[in-house]
Amino acid sequence: MPKTRQQNQNSLYLSPVITIVIISILSPLSLAAQPSKFRRAPRFVGKLPHLTEPPQRQQRQQQQQYRYETRYFEQRLDHFSFADLPTFSQRYLINTDHWVGPNRLGPIFLYCGNEGDIEWFAVNSGFVWDIAPRFGAMLVFPEHRYYGESMPYGSTEVAYQNATTLSYLTAEQALADFAVFITNLKQNLSAEASPVVLFGGSYGGMLAAWMRLKYPHIAIGALASSAPILQFEDIVPPETFYNIVSSDFKRESASCFNTIKESWGELVSVGQKENGLLELTKTFHLCRELNSTEDLADWLESAYSYLAMVDYPYPSDFMMPLPGYPIREVCKKIDNAPDATSILERIFEGVSVYYNYTGNVDCFQLDDDPHGLDGWNWQACTEMVMPMSSSRDKSMFPAYDYNYSSFKEECWNDFNVIPRPRWITTEFGGHDIKSVLKLFGSNIIFSNGLLDPWSGGSVLQNLSETIVALVTEE
Amino acid sequence: MPKTRQQNQNSLYLSPVITIVIISILSPLSLAAQPSKFRRAPRFVGKLPHLTEPPQRQQRQQQQQYRYETRYFEQRLDHFSFADLPTFSQRYLINTDHWVGPNRLGPIFLYCGNEGDIEWFAVNSGFVWDIAPRFGAMLVFPEHRYYGESMPYGSTEVAYQNATTLSYLTAEQALADFAVFITNLKQNLSAEASPVVLFGGSYGGMLAAWMRLKYPHIAIGALASSAPILQFEDIVPPETFYNIVSSDFKRESASCFNTIKESWGELVSVGQKENGLLELTKTFHLCRELNSTEDLADWLESAYSYLAMVDYPYPSDFMMPLPGYPIREVCKKIDNAPDATSILERIFEGVSVYYNYTGNVDCFQLDDDPHGLDGWNWQACTEMVMPMSSSRDKSMFPAYDYNYSSFKEECWNDFNVIPRPRWITTEFGGHDIKSVLKLFGSNIIFSNGLLDPWSGGSVLQNLSETIVALVTEE
Repeated sequence: MPKTRQQNQNSLYLSPVITIVIISILSPLSLAAQPSKFRRAPRFVGKLPHLTEPPQRQQRQQQQQYRYETRYFEQRLDHFSFADLPTFSQRYLINTDHWVGPNRLGPIFLYCGNEGDIEWFAVNSGFVWDIAPRFGAMLVFPEHRYYGESMPYGSTEVAYQNATTLSYLTAEQALADFAVFITNLKQNLSAEASPVVLFGGSYGGMLAAWMRLKYPHIAIGALASSAPILQFEDIVPPETFYNIVSSDFKRESASCFNTIKESWGELVSVGQKENGLLELTKTFHLCRELNSTEDLADWLESAYSYLAMVDYPYPSDFMMPLPGYPIREVCKKIDNAPDATSILERIFEGVSVYYNYTGNVDCFQLDDDPHGLDGWNWQACTEMVMPMSSSRDKSMFPAYDYNYSSFKEECWNDFNVIPRPRWITTEFGGHDIKSVLKLFGSNIIFSNGLLDPWSGGSVLQNLSETIVALVTEE
Repeated sequence: MPKTRQQNQNSLYLSPVITIVIISILSPLSLAAQPSKFRRAPRFVGKLPHLTEPPQRQQRQQQQQYRYETRYFEQRLDHFSFADLPTFSQRYLINTDHWVGPNRLGPIFLYCGNEGDIEWFAVNSGFVWDIAPRFGAMLVFPEHRYYGESMPYGSTEVAYQNATTLSYLTAEQALADFAVFITNLKQNLSAEASPVVLFGGSYGGMLAAWMRLKYPHIAIGALASSAPILQFEDIVPPETFYNIVSSDFKRESASCFNTIKESWGELVSVGQKENGLLELTKTFHLCRELNSTEDLADWLESAYSYLAMVDYPYPSDFMMPLPGYPIREVCKKIDNAPDATSILERIFEGVSVYYNYTGNVDCFQLDDDPHGLDGWNWQACTEMVMPMSSSRDKSMFPAYDYNYSSFKEECWNDFNVIPRPRWITTEFGGHDIKSVLKLFGSNIIFSNGLLDPWSGGSVLQNLSETIVALVTEE
């Protein structure tokens, strides 16, 4: 049954006009270009579902729209050794409403579960639901280990206890989970010949691309959406992410960009005044008195980065309830305030579009623990070492030069773990990725990615045609 | 400097006329078709270097011929987790005599170390040494973890202590060792752009093929010699190996094949007589009195299988000092004995070609522990589960029907480990291997393999031409 336009608007569509990357920052940039203020290295991607839970009401609606069964599959904790470790139960969601079955080689669309509760992603990934009927496809959404309900050692508390219990939270193990899961599922359904197409966004997009590279016998192709597989080592300039976010704002309005760029210094100077933190608390309508300007800066930076990730041309409710073109709305508030409005008051008006579009919020709670020891922070501190800087001129964020030593130190303090910054490119490649991808023909589609300077346009409209080619190729 | 013909003859050449597979059996087939006699499931591949050490004299000669430096590289014990484990020192051999260097994109030929001491393989792999000058290539021979000197936990005793210490002895970890090793080596030499070509035979051939599949960004191609990557699950009939070995004997002489086929029953009936074991001890010139007919059967089966693996058309000294066409020589002894010679005396004359070609052996020591808990037996009991049967009609070996349950039980008894018989095909594919290999063009050469019914001939003579294509492709 074809979805209506209204339904589509609630799903995680990658719009042709969006040129940004679905990526998040977990740690704040430091304020201004004052090294003494730099607290932590900015980190990349992930933690999406932690920002805010989707409203229960909306989730229930979407679940009616996107029906699935919830099942569980027993997985080894370590696929690559024979250590005697407990198994764990991987959750997966499945919908076979439109599947034409094994005899007609009905395809299997596998969404690569990423860093969060799989239900949250499933009900926000409209594209696969919309195209499933056209392809007679089954949908499966295996959850990523260590997220949602797919928790080793029986509980989040034990799984996240220390570096030893967390040590099996890696991309390679997650890919092997998918490989074992889908091999078993196909065998149980006598659907060995059914083609598998992978889908994923952001970190999940990397998983989709890497899965196709590593398990070509399992998946015939992948749609890797907003997958920054080149954001490792020195492959792309570390300023890339913040430059893209900033240019999304600059494109809407140069003065908006400039106001945000100026605001960090303003924040610092107000914060340093007597009762400055109290003044900031009032200006930004915070529920509790501010402890440091950095906490406020984190909160603002998160808003801008997430806004760039969900700058859809239609109203949406993926991270937060938002209008269409939300960056444009933010910039209108910043630019169009009465002349006497201060820089920080303008900033407050602007980010209120993100944090309070519904107008229901009386005061704002800053994230109590923006550097929480969650799964994505572990991954960022182990394999997913993605250097990030903020350039002095092209970025509207506080300037920051990536420094691996301090990053490494933070990871040691947080997790007692030493990152392996060169592992991802050793395991999956990256430096000469084009010659590798050539091997696979065009069977990995990087939409909205860092790989190519595709700025939307023709990409999305060709996606389902390309998937036709994948599914029917032999 | 081109090698002379004489030199070539001492190296592990894969001759065009050899159609067999370099594969070994570690465990005996049971005698005759009497299920009560079946002790252990026959196992596949590996344990080559355990059979006999190359003579010191010959080794020294070869080392002069094949000069290399010995170096060590620090490796993680588990590449796929962040568990806090000790690192280990991987040995590798390197020769840069003919390397034209990074600026001229001098290629790197990487021999995938397999189940034994790397020096033993290096001095018995003449092909890579011979072609290195032609390509201006560097040769590197990284040793496989848990073999030779590349021992985790500092010693063989600790590394082989139990299933926990052995648990990181897997093919995936070995491939990751190669990937990390070569990435580092290239960086140290500023040779990132130098193409890497993989070489390997038997289990090492599987590693070469799988490495090319899993790390296409690291290696541009592989020569996978005698690599039975399809000897898993139900992909090829489990009788394949013994049928091939048997047909090598049958091709030389049908009566030789028949005599061997009859000998197992004869062995059992003599063994069951009063003083039968003593009689067998004398017939076979054993140093110590035989404990069971099975021990003798093991010894004979090993000889036939290894003979098929080294049935080179020229004298060689890889497993044992042997004449050219050694199977032909064995069959001559069996067939041409005086008429009155008994079946078992004929068999003794035949296998003496293998065990005593030099004539220096006065009495024979049967392997004290043919089922030793060595590295290959661990690998066979974990990942490398290769079903093997011996057919009632086409095989000259005692009949045996593969039985996974009893195999599993043996592994539990030996190692306290449960095999994962479906893992290799999940991780590396196999069921539809042609569609996967298609992706890589012709960049994996399976010479002498189970994959294609290539019976030598044009294969070897085209190898170095194909490698030209690999190295120069872009």
